[in-house]
Amino acid sequence: MPLNPEASIEITAMRWVPPGAQGLVKDMRVRWALEEAGLDYRVRLVGMEKPPGYTNDQAFNQVPCFRDDTVQIFESGAILQYIGEKTEALLPREPQAKSRAIQWTYAAVSSVEPFVQFRALLNVVFADQPWAEPAKPTFDHFARLRLQQLSDSLGEKQWLEGDRFTIGDLMMVTVLRIADRSGQLADFPTLAAYVQRGQQRPAFKQALSDQLAAFAANEPQPEGAAA
Amino acid sequence: MPLNPEASIEITAMRWVPPGAQGLVKDMRVRWALEEAGLDYRVRLVGMEKPPGYTNDQAFNQVPCFRDDTVQIFESGAILQYIGEKTEALLPREPQAKSRAIQWTYAAVSSVEPFVQFRALLNVVFADQPWAEPAKPTFDHFARLRLQQLSDSLGEKQWLEGDRFTIGDLMMVTVLRIADRSGQLADFPTLAAYVQRGQQRPAFKQALSDQLAAFAANEPQPEGAAA
Repeated sequence: MPLNPEASIEITAMRWVPPGAQGLVKDMRVRWALEEAGLDYRVRLVGMEKPPGYTNDQAFNQVPCFRDDTVQIFESGAILQYIGEKTEALLPREPQAKSRAIQWTYAAVSSVEPFVQFRALLNVVFADQPWAEPAKPTFDHFARLRLQQLSDSLGEKQWLEGDRFTIGDLMMVTVLRIADRSGQLADFPTLAAYVQRGQQRPAFKQALSDQLAAFAANEPQPEGAAA
Repeated sequence: MPLNPEASIEITAMRWVPPGAQGLVKDMRVRWALEEAGLDYRVRLVGMEKPPGYTNDQAFNQVPCFRDDTVQIFESGAILQYIGEKTEALLPREPQAKSRAIQWTYAAVSSVEPFVQFRALLNVVFADQPWAEPAKPTFDHFARLRLQQLSDSLGEKQWLEGDRFTIGDLMMVTVLRIADRSGQLADFPTLAAYVQRGQQRPAFKQALSDQLAAFAANEPQPEGAAA
């Protein structure tokens, strides 16, 4: 149980988000990696309105930030690498295997996530925009292209580079969960099964449970409920 | 002059692209880093139709791929890190400084590029779509938010972490050049000046010259010109 209020590692996470975003907020990536690594951490919860000075820690006013006795950083990819450097289980040491694991973290956030994220937003945040519906075929096309290419690359393998789970898989699974939740994996059984494999890892389950527990504990009360 | 047909480092690059994309194709990032590092490399030019089996090297059918005697990887971020590990000039060794440099490479490709890239595409690839014009205010909003946050974070500093240029700056400047070319930096003089500082580096100029030289040498001939 890595949640420990005395831990030297601190991450920031959201106090609460709407149900559609629960389980997808990006501190999941860091929680999951810390669970895989068996590293204790504590959580600093923040609201939609961040505390004064928060952009000094996170330039884009988002979660997660990460700090320990050595570094203070943001961007989940950089944090996963820092954790991976502590834990060979997540980041191989052999140069080719290490570079490939790092490669897949960038592929996840740069070559896949923007396409599936924008497509997902058309159903949610942008749904009431008059251009959202006519834009869907174009965004579908690009998201499906990237998902097909990724599916072809994964093929029959268990993980992106074979039998070994790395930070590249961890990041990619969290990105594909965005696609999965918005129905984009319906035609990609290879990717859906890959997401399932990731979600079955005990470390994933613990991380998800801990993120959701914070939301449950901080559920906004309906107006008048306190009366 | 790092271009060397006998070099052990090989990258792939496009044989030719339309003028709007010239100077922005992502092998620029790797060429620039190799010039900063003083590492010889050779170039394997490919067309829009990639050679058979190319997706074995690059899952998303794009450039650049990178190989040397040790690794074979894609994703410009992973390649910049690999070059940075060879060259302290681009990637500090002290843990905090190293993690921050890596952090900014992810910020560039994940927190900034998708927003400025989609906004730029509305003027070009998507311009003839009926939804493109009405979508502009929304995409403007998100792109400008990220650019403002980045501008605030950079502030008066020369580079993102102060006086030292790293792979984080190299990546961010190449992303901001996309924004710059589509007019998105007009209201962000701090970022425009930062891009200028990057573009004034001799290594950048050499890399750009080499990318453009390949395009000039492979300019498509107008139909009938050979007659």
